[in-house]
Amino acid sequence: MVKVGILGASGYTGLELIRILLNHPHIKIAVITSEKYSGAKISDVFPSFKGHLDLKYEALSPEEVSKKCDFVFSALPHKASMSVVPPLLKAGKKVVDLSADFRLKSPATYKDWYKEEHKTPELLNSAVYGIPELKRERIKSANLVANPGCYPTSVILALAPLLKENIIDTDSIIVDSKSGVTGAGRKVEEALLFAECNDNFKAYNIASHRHTPEMEQEISEVAKKAVKITFTPHLLPVNRGILSTIYCSPLNKNLASEDILKIYEDFYKGERFVRILGIGKSPQTHYLLGSNYCDIGFQIDKRTGKIIIVSAIDNLVKGASGQAVQNMNIMLGFKEDTALEGVGIFP
Amino acid sequence: MVKVGILGASGYTGLELIRILLNHPHIKIAVITSEKYSGAKISDVFPSFKGHLDLKYEALSPEEVSKKCDFVFSALPHKASMSVVPPLLKAGKKVVDLSADFRLKSPATYKDWYKEEHKTPELLNSAVYGIPELKRERIKSANLVANPGCYPTSVILALAPLLKENIIDTDSIIVDSKSGVTGAGRKVEEALLFAECNDNFKAYNIASHRHTPEMEQEISEVAKKAVKITFTPHLLPVNRGILSTIYCSPLNKNLASEDILKIYEDFYKGERFVRILGIGKSPQTHYLLGSNYCDIGFQIDKRTGKIIIVSAIDNLVKGASGQAVQNMNIMLGFKEDTALEGVGIFP
Amino acid sequence: MVKVGILGASGYTGLELIRILLNHPHIKIAVITSEKYSGAKISDVFPSFKGHLDLKYEALSPEEVSKKCDFVFSALPHKASMSVVPPLLKAGKKVVDLSADFRLKSPATYKDWYKEEHKTPELLNSAVYGIPELKRERIKSANLVANPGCYPTSVILALAPLLKENIIDTDSIIVDSKSGVTGAGRKVEEALLFAECNDNFKAYNIASHRHTPEMEQEISEVAKKAVKITFTPHLLPVNRGILSTIYCSPLNKNLASEDILKIYEDFYKGERFVRILGIGKSPQTHYLLGSNYCDIGFQIDKRTGKIIIVSAIDNLVKGASGQAVQNMNIMLGFKEDTALEGVGIFP
Amino acid sequence: MVKVGILGASGYTGLELIRILLNHPHIKIAVITSEKYSGAKISDVFPSFKGHLDLKYEALSPEEVSKKCDFVFSALPHKASMSVVPPLLKAGKKVVDLSADFRLKSPATYKDWYKEEHKTPELLNSAVYGIPELKRERIKSANLVANPGCYPTSVILALAPLLKENIIDTDSIIVDSKSGVTGAGRKVEEALLFAECNDNFKAYNIASHRHTPEMEQEISEVAKKAVKITFTPHLLPVNRGILSTIYCSPLNKNLASEDILKIYEDFYKGERFVRILGIGKSPQTHYLLGSNYCDIGFQIDKRTGKIIIVSAIDNLVKGASGQAVQNMNIMLGFKEDTALEGVGIFP
Repeated sequence: MVKVGILGASGYTGLELIRILLNHPHIKIAVITSEKYSGAKISDVFPSFKGHLDLKYEALSPEEVSKKCDFVFSALPHKASMSVVPPLLKAGKKVVDLSADFRLKSPATYKDWYKEEHKTPELLNSAVYGIPELKRERIKSANLVANPGCYPTSVILALAPLLKENIIDTDSIIVDSKSGVTGAGRKVEEALLFAECNDNFKAYNIASHRHTPEMEQEISEVAKKAVKITFTPHLLPVNRGILSTIYCSPLNKNLASEDILKIYEDFYKGERFVRILGIGKSPQTHYLLGSNYCDIGFQIDKRTGKIIIVSAIDNLVKGASGQAVQNMNIMLGFKEDTALEGVGIFP
Repeated sequence: MVKVGILGASGYTGLELIRILLNHPHIKIAVITSEKYSGAKISDVFPSFKGHLDLKYEALSPEEVSKKCDFVFSALPHKASMSVVPPLLKAGKKVVDLSADFRLKSPATYKDWYKEEHKTPELLNSAVYGIPELKRERIKSANLVANPGCYPTSVILALAPLLKENIIDTDSIIVDSKSGVTGAGRKVEEALLFAECNDNFKAYNIASHRHTPEMEQEISEVAKKAVKITFTPHLLPVNRGILSTIYCSPLNKNLASEDILKIYEDFYKGERFVRILGIGKSPQTHYLLGSNYCDIGFQIDKRTGKIIIVSAIDNLVKGASGQAVQNMNIMLGFKEDTALEGVGIFP
Repeated sequence: MVKVGILGASGYTGLELIRILLNHPHIKIAVITSEKYSGAKISDVFPSFKGHLDLKYEALSPEEVSKKCDFVFSALPHKASMSVVPPLLKAGKKVVDLSADFRLKSPATYKDWYKEEHKTPELLNSAVYGIPELKRERIKSANLVANPGCYPTSVILALAPLLKENIIDTDSIIVDSKSGVTGAGRKVEEALLFAECNDNFKAYNIASHRHTPEMEQEISEVAKKAVKITFTPHLLPVNRGILSTIYCSPLNKNLASEDILKIYEDFYKGERFVRILGIGKSPQTHYLLGSNYCDIGFQIDKRTGKIIIVSAIDNLVKGASGQAVQNMNIMLGFKEDTALEGVGIFP
Repeated sequence: MVKVGILGASGYTGLELIRILLNHPHIKIAVITSEKYSGAKISDVFPSFKGHLDLKYEALSPEEVSKKCDFVFSALPHKASMSVVPPLLKAGKKVVDLSADFRLKSPATYKDWYKEEHKTPELLNSAVYGIPELKRERIKSANLVANPGCYPTSVILALAPLLKENIIDTDSIIVDSKSGVTGAGRKVEEALLFAECNDNFKAYNIASHRHTPEMEQEISEVAKKAVKITFTPHLLPVNRGILSTIYCSPLNKNLASEDILKIYEDFYKGERFVRILGIGKSPQTHYLLGSNYCDIGFQIDKRTGKIIIVSAIDNLVKGASGQAVQNMNIMLGFKEDTALEGVGIFP
């Protein structure tokens, strides 16, 4: 049994890690940290775990965590992780970090978007951006995996096959994404109150969302050229789910739907967690909530020539904690879908 | 008092017409029709009207309606309206039709999208597409106003100023719209059940939604050239509200936000129901639910050069019944905002 | 025009007062206070008011308010109101207070439930508990009206007719109430976050909710004897609406539904805002959202003999700001339904 | 591997059976029936199953089912099951029936509530009402288990300990239950449309809901006397979850909370799926959605003496398909929680 620690285990991604890992036959949750609930039994704070986990929350101490754990998930906020992860690595632990702190290769880009100097830029190159469908081999040997953001997971998986095959105009990409409220984390803010989100819909952080640079970094790597995207996130009145609608122009106007379908099916052949829906089919979030799937559909608008790709994930699973466990499974040599076998909950 | 008839008065737009007209000091609702509830008192079927309206639903007879009414709203479905409206016009009644039957100028386009021959093509040219901010003068003297679709209202109002000033590339327009469930009407279909829509989000009718040709017709008229758009509608788990996120490229890369703001403010100067939010502000549906407003914000993505426009309406008010009453007010010479004065309900 | 001040005008009841008063032909909103938004234009903070109200929020100063206003609504929290209202009364202003501070006649009961000594107990007797259907005459001449709580409004109106006619066992009353989230106010608390309330349902403050003593005070007055109730509030995942299901035993087992219907209809004869549904009919919140109605239905369980009464209100309208305006209309001699004429918004 | 058939596999309980059974190591789903989707692959109709189950729906033929299956779940509607189950039993299959057809022991009571003569009354006595915490031994040897209704599960589990210990007045029981919309099944009815349920709350079938007689039958058996209850169901705007608030009077006014807690803890000692929350704690549905738990809390109202019990379940899991699998596990000798191990999904 691998002893695992979860840092920041009272936020939504931390709780989801626990939910998933409780199904894992080779894992024992050894430490959960939370400054807010330090000293309290998790099953008292979150009664869903009654009968399953009776650990007490601890205040975070990297030394204590290193002593008790073999493997660590950090579900701490941006900027907190970059101080906590290095001592864990030094102590020889493997780490999946769910924050943005180790996703960007360039410290300058990090500073541009996160408005703070990176504290451990030397780790950025060895950290692997943890999207298994693209980087499985590098993840296998990584000590530090930077778990992708939720929006980027839905966008990178949707665009990678087309960019790899070089069939779309890389200047034409527009990404219109919609996310459930848990994507913002368990922050106690007015804008996240029930009565402010329910029955409401809005765009936010237009042309300025921090997930933009990591999307561009990864799809540029696939495209082998610098690619920029126009990205607009929106807030859906649901707990979970991201759906991204992506627009781009084919380089060849005669490209057929069948060509595109083949590109997707070839690219994701054998992939357990990416499902390519048939031509003219489009994903719905309620068919994958609670599961680790990314469902992808697409269409060609015959009137305008545009390709419209729609991808959907559960932001807390494939968009965060599920993908983190998938990464851990790869890093530790377990079967990749261990603890991630289930289908979505519908309805 | 003008005696008004409402055909199809048990659907969501019919009910909303009643709600609004009950506040109208110069209107008396004289006839309400519904095949399904014929013979029943509306306040027994919909107790919201108890104490306000005790009319009985009648089966639809154009002759009866003509006898009892001076003015008629048809909230019948597509294809039904085109048979019912002509006798009303012949009887000298003014009509606002909320279906799609008289929106398109070209019978061929109608057949392409609605899969049926138009029965009264001779009426298409005299019918006025009823978007008052663009066609107020023509509405004043019209006998038949084709009330715009909900998506088109949100899109045409957002694009018209930029197209009129000829500052955007008309080949670059992408419209990503999201609508509440009432946009589909009160149809008893599996896909509209609570458990299918709640906690769910999806795109639908990608590249094939029937609101596309009327948007293109109207914005082409403004642009004075044929304009095509890529349009993707989505279904939001809310009762009311449409938010459209629109992407386009400026012709002049040096265009400033201030220039765009001025264009919008000039275009909508004096307009009671279009509110231009300041630079960097973006609308939210919950600030206008129940009201007749269209709120519009925009942004320039400095990294990609794209203009991102966001517009929001209540699909049942400015997107249907509110705009219909606004049109009636214009046709009958009433103050344009009569019965439409209120602010949105928040939260 | 009566100049009105609204204290605490950035909470949900404050905002709802503004929404309603903007429709009032004899009222001018002269002052709005908010510590949090002091200095900001309300239409910048809440864009629903753009085009309707351009006042700036002010920090609360009773002197300033007294200078600028003839009539004051206090939508401040419990405990804050009791310090602010007395100087306004001294300055000769009429006040409707929406907090709980002046609802209870007994300072000892206040202390028991609110855990604080009342600061101005001398005002408690002259304050009128503002439920117009029971106390219209006293409200007419009151200077201070204590606006009822939301749950109590739904419960007192449902029970008063039966208690007045002395037909139920006063030891048998059980009240099971369910409220939308705005009932808790615009508090920034974890338990009110979207992701905590959505898809969830719970009871809270079982046997200890602070609305209990005011319900008991008022129904005891009607019953002319001390009545206690068992009261359980629950939190609904909706923005607005309260539905109370009330159980009691008839004193006479032969009591017929028709007898009860007659009692309700007689009691509420001529009342504009209480609608008694027929035998076997039961209210639904969506038929009155946004309106000032209280809808009441009832049933006798023939198998167990229990009477089951169901009442519904919009907690922000009849349960708070609508009733406050109704009280103001009575105090100032306006038609009682001025600005409260509209029907509910459905759907 | 036991070959299992699921009749009515396109309704919500049928789909939930599949979701759960896909996690079962000893089960193979061999037949799924649906008249509506006969011939279609389930993964085409419900893409959640893509990659997990590629069976085609079949029209229902008891002979075919008997040939292909060892064990059958009938998720057919009331009245349909009683014709289909007998031939399966005759063919030697074990059956869990999720309809109401075999729950009531008395054919007369069945006729009273379901308005139809029972077709196979001779089976009623051998059918076991499948609530494992009360009838585990009888379930072990049963060939036909009548799976309890969703409301009854939440109510019987909450009341049984107190009735067995004979500490409450059996004439005092009032049950106020609230259910998510999936409780009504996947019926295509106006009242179940999204726009009719969302933002709404109502009571329905007051004093006449068909789950009443099965609750009374089972709690009377525990109490060893005839017990009647007053039962009011309500419709919550959520997909899943039932919360029942139950009121009763203790026979001994000096009964302490500690006494009640001990009764519950003793009664449910060792039970895997009933969680007794501590004194003063109350369940919330979101802590058990997707899991097979029934969470129970209680309180004594010191002012009125009433005991208030609150119980919560997921209506599709412990209230239907989860409990059905629990029953199957018992009937087939598997570990009782096989395929039911997971914690709830929060949020």
